[in-house]
Amino acid sequence: MKTLILIRHGESEWNKLNLFTGWTNVDLTEKGINEAFEAGLTLKKEGYRPQVCFTSYLKRAIKTLNNVLDAMDMDWLPVFKTWRLNEKSYGAIQGLNKADTAKKYGDEQVKQWRRAYDVQPPRLDINDERSPRRDHRYDEIPDELIPLTESLKDTVARVMPYYNDVIMKAFETNNQVLVVAHGNSLRGIVKELRGMTNDEIINFNIPTGIPYVFDFDDDMKLLGHKFLGDPEVIAKLMESVANQGKAAK
Amino acid sequence: MKTLILIRHGESEWNKLNLFTGWTNVDLTEKGINEAFEAGLTLKKEGYRPQVCFTSYLKRAIKTLNNVLDAMDMDWLPVFKTWRLNEKSYGAIQGLNKADTAKKYGDEQVKQWRRAYDVQPPRLDINDERSPRRDHRYDEIPDELIPLTESLKDTVARVMPYYNDVIMKAFETNNQVLVVAHGNSLRGIVKELRGMTNDEIINFNIPTGIPYVFDFDDDMKLLGHKFLGDPEVIAKLMESVANQGKAAK
Repeated sequence: MKTLILIRHGESEWNKLNLFTGWTNVDLTEKGINEAFEAGLTLKKEGYRPQVCFTSYLKRAIKTLNNVLDAMDMDWLPVFKTWRLNEKSYGAIQGLNKADTAKKYGDEQVKQWRRAYDVQPPRLDINDERSPRRDHRYDEIPDELIPLTESLKDTVARVMPYYNDVIMKAFETNNQVLVVAHGNSLRGIVKELRGMTNDEIINFNIPTGIPYVFDFDDDMKLLGHKFLGDPEVIAKLMESVANQGKAAK
Repeated sequence: MKTLILIRHGESEWNKLNLFTGWTNVDLTEKGINEAFEAGLTLKKEGYRPQVCFTSYLKRAIKTLNNVLDAMDMDWLPVFKTWRLNEKSYGAIQGLNKADTAKKYGDEQVKQWRRAYDVQPPRLDINDERSPRRDHRYDEIPDELIPLTESLKDTVARVMPYYNDVIMKAFETNNQVLVVAHGNSLRGIVKELRGMTNDEIINFNIPTGIPYVFDFDDDMKLLGHKFLGDPEVIAKLMESVANQGKAAK
């Protein structure tokens, strides 16, 4: 049997401030660190033993992974990092408050920017101080691939080559693979695995810090999937993510 | 120009308790975490930009590296981990107090076990609960290579294939390489780089958490080497490591 474990990073400084984050490289909060450590303890308790790990170039995902591995006493595992697992780029609205933006543009426009499958938020100028082109960690990405804004469709298109060519390939020599990434980059993977429609994936919210486990047979036919943890806690977490983009009452 | 940066991990729980650690997988202390973070800030301030990192399978080295990279805002860098960079195995004296052991066997015997180039401490039984054979992270090491005790000579012999075949090879595609490891595994590298005799390397103490920088020309001819930081602090650190094995007065 083969197992893919997905984990969305724990609470970040900007989750807490309710700002659009995207490619902004914000840190985890203390709560986020604890969520990550708890996820690791859950995996350990349930007997999971990943053999290789993947994460993004963003520190909130990397530190989540570090804490998961620390809790499992498995920080010696190989870890591969890639910009392709980064969060969706929110373009020029990165750094704006979600509720304020909803008040100004309306819940519906913000929901479109956050969740419509193929609507992009306003584009960043490539010379904007928030542009990934100004950050050396992205020097390897050619101009034509550098994300200055993305719809979920764009994010999925950017994640899937790595998913297919690297992560799925890792199952040729490993039975358990761990991926720690972001709400929207993980949506791309979940959409593919569960064969969801564009509408279904838009309305599917992945809770933070909860291991999402996919089991396959040896031919990589999907056998089932489940979140690890208390079902009531998970339902509450999914609800709270869905509500973040609504204007404050 | 090419640059190799070596860092010995910060203070661990067992450094603090003055126990022989070797392959025991003990954690960093708060002081050790701070030492690591400071080392990262120093590297950042001095303008170093490593492109690839290597560390051991032991969490005190891995967490030192994680904190160095966090301080540099470079935690997206590729990191490769290997048991070959682990600390020297202290065999059956792992877990014993250094001062007590010196009182029982004499300063000279302990100095031999710690520092004689080719004297091994008493060997661990392969079934001892401290044996690496009982730890899944070392499943890849065949029985004949599993260290149950090591002289410094043995440690050097185990480190150098990785140093030559992997770390040096990394300079073919990178200009700056960072290695975070242990007092004795780094001794192997320093001995090679500086052409030191067995006696010289025995008496050379690498301070914890201080970046040790080697500069090379493009043909990997050594141009020079230096510790980064306050020379007085470094001299004091080197002295304190040398004194750890002496019986308490």
